[in-house]
Amino acid sequence: MTRTGWDVKQSETAKHTSNPIRAIVDQLKIVPCPGKDLISVSIGDPTVFGNLPTHDSVVDAVIDAVKSSKANGYTHSTGYEHAREAVAERYSHPDAPLTSKDVIIASGCSGALDLAITALANPGQNILIPRPGFSLYQTLADSKGIKVRHYNLLPEKNWEIDLEHLQSLVDDQTAAIVVNNPSNPCGSNYSRAHLLDILQLAEKNFLPIISDEIYADMVFSGQVFEPMAPLTKTVPILACGGIAKQFLVPGWRVGWLMIHDRNNTFKEIREGLLKLTTLILGANTIVQDALPTMLHKTPRGFLTATLATIEEHAKLSYEMLGKIDGLVPIMPQGTMYFMVGIQIEKFKDIANDMDFVQKLVTEQSVFALPASCFAYPNFFRIVITVPKDKLKIAYERLAEFCAQHRK
Amino acid sequence: MTRTGWDVKQSETAKHTSNPIRAIVDQLKIVPCPGKDLISVSIGDPTVFGNLPTHDSVVDAVIDAVKSSKANGYTHSTGYEHAREAVAERYSHPDAPLTSKDVIIASGCSGALDLAITALANPGQNILIPRPGFSLYQTLADSKGIKVRHYNLLPEKNWEIDLEHLQSLVDDQTAAIVVNNPSNPCGSNYSRAHLLDILQLAEKNFLPIISDEIYADMVFSGQVFEPMAPLTKTVPILACGGIAKQFLVPGWRVGWLMIHDRNNTFKEIREGLLKLTTLILGANTIVQDALPTMLHKTPRGFLTATLATIEEHAKLSYEMLGKIDGLVPIMPQGTMYFMVGIQIEKFKDIANDMDFVQKLVTEQSVFALPASCFAYPNFFRIVITVPKDKLKIAYERLAEFCAQHRK
Repeated sequence: MTRTGWDVKQSETAKHTSNPIRAIVDQLKIVPCPGKDLISVSIGDPTVFGNLPTHDSVVDAVIDAVKSSKANGYTHSTGYEHAREAVAERYSHPDAPLTSKDVIIASGCSGALDLAITALANPGQNILIPRPGFSLYQTLADSKGIKVRHYNLLPEKNWEIDLEHLQSLVDDQTAAIVVNNPSNPCGSNYSRAHLLDILQLAEKNFLPIISDEIYADMVFSGQVFEPMAPLTKTVPILACGGIAKQFLVPGWRVGWLMIHDRNNTFKEIREGLLKLTTLILGANTIVQDALPTMLHKTPRGFLTATLATIEEHAKLSYEMLGKIDGLVPIMPQGTMYFMVGIQIEKFKDIANDMDFVQKLVTEQSVFALPASCFAYPNFFRIVITVPKDKLKIAYERLAEFCAQHRK
Repeated sequence: MTRTGWDVKQSETAKHTSNPIRAIVDQLKIVPCPGKDLISVSIGDPTVFGNLPTHDSVVDAVIDAVKSSKANGYTHSTGYEHAREAVAERYSHPDAPLTSKDVIIASGCSGALDLAITALANPGQNILIPRPGFSLYQTLADSKGIKVRHYNLLPEKNWEIDLEHLQSLVDDQTAAIVVNNPSNPCGSNYSRAHLLDILQLAEKNFLPIISDEIYADMVFSGQVFEPMAPLTKTVPILACGGIAKQFLVPGWRVGWLMIHDRNNTFKEIREGLLKLTTLILGANTIVQDALPTMLHKTPRGFLTATLATIEEHAKLSYEMLGKIDGLVPIMPQGTMYFMVGIQIEKFKDIANDMDFVQKLVTEQSVFALPASCFAYPNFFRIVITVPKDKLKIAYERLAEFCAQHRK
């Protein structure tokens, strides 16, 4: 018995794959107010406005790689040995040593997260992910039939994890905890003490951790970024990172996964990850070839300067938004994001964050992302890599908007 | 009830993912004969020996893209509009017109195949794939729990498909037919008449086709490459291509999927594909940005010259191997591969292709890929982009090897 007509259905996988941000933004009508130029503070891409170019040495390293003709062929499915070695050297720590064998080069940090989630969880099992949190965790899990359970972050405690809530979500089908530190969209940077508490919970429940550290080192003055792996001798960790944000080149699609095994508990996972890398051989070889130079030779001052700019924008945001009655800005400790709470009860005609963002773009041509995109209604997220003068105008318009809609 | 100890198992997906080439090659001991330098004719990568560099205009286009600072950010998940437009223009045909909306830029042609197979087939369904054939189809399918059924190619008919056998494999769980033309590992290039026969079978069974055309246009003198899509008004086709082989840059990981809908039968598939692209945003933006220049400005003579070299090597191979009693070389019509049959019965101590290849590398330091890697025992595959002088030495050693082992 074969088919009797053209009836080509998309697969279940395709059907269950969706980007929450797109699904939510598609419900909005992004029609700016005529006469006011659109200021979009919604896209998590630091390159959009051209004010934050990558470093010349990064450009030169890529040009050298292209000119050499030596980086055009296939690599090992886990990436060039010298690229993996560079990542291992850069991120190795006395308490969590890495060699090139512990590193897999992936198609962006997203590719690394895909590998990590796919290796650890079966369809029907669940992974625990943060709320608010980066939407890709859910997109990847949904696509594979893996369930997600959102654990709460506490805005009043700099977005630390509500550990009691996290513990309440664990069951025998839980495959891993995803921790995102520093966090998108929160901009939080966890203390060593809090990370130790998370690890204690993971250990008690024998749960491996997927640590999304794409914003590693991207913290403001006075803050210290603590990678998770050096803080445990027992909890196995897959740490994900990449060049996207620290080098301001998200389109280049080179990230990595670092395998921090503990007492051989990741023996099978390591084997599984290696097999999964053979599927599409993802990361561009020119950028891989440039990676050692990027990681070892880019002046430290480059990242410091980027962060100084972002921190200045964060302070400006906190100051200007703090003066707007009805909004609750939460000062980030790093990354390039800024979360703002909406006191819905103070407004006469704003139903929720979607409504707020919709009316804001229609009336004031300012587009921010409703935090419903991060499973966290009644907040919105601002990307603070946008140039300062544009941010100022955006906040002036926000002030006017709130004044007009307040009770 | 939660876990009671560290017991971290790899997922079923990881467990079922394997590269047949690796699985088979890992069974061999690649220890060359001391005193004879190893000549590897096994790796399908034209860049290995440095004799086939890409064109200067390609290098320049990439350098321009890096220097511009305009290709560092995220693209739409289907790729840059100008990159998709360039692919559409290059491959549009009066009988199979394409616009940028019909093109998805993927992480290599492998990424395009992954999208196509994932969108069309559910776990438990089956896809029909060629034997001998490129191993990735099976790797991708196995990983997703999709079954494969191998249809036979006929070496005596220039590797045309055994249509009767193909038809016999179709059942109500068949989701698609994968056709690879020109073919890896066969080097065959199908005639229009044969392609029409395949399409007729697809139409009769209402089966969409995944057409892997990564070797499009890579055919020898006197041959014409026929893309499949223009030959049908009814069978919907996902055609996959890329820059890897035609521009000699497989490591750059930029390919594409071209959606040839027919009478709206691919409406759901198009939607599904778009959703699947949001998973990892795979293709490097620098190369994407260079794509219009690569496709439109690279002199035609570049590909012609590459093909002339490969054809010369094919002729040399056919001539030299044809003189070796016990081997049956099959002249390819394009690509960069050459299949050689082994008349096992003529040898006194060769059990099969694995044994042949193992003894050949141990005694003569020549390493070819056993066609067991392509589900086709008792053949081996030679990659004929290897420099001519090395090929000659390899064939002289092969002659000696066969003489020593013949009955």
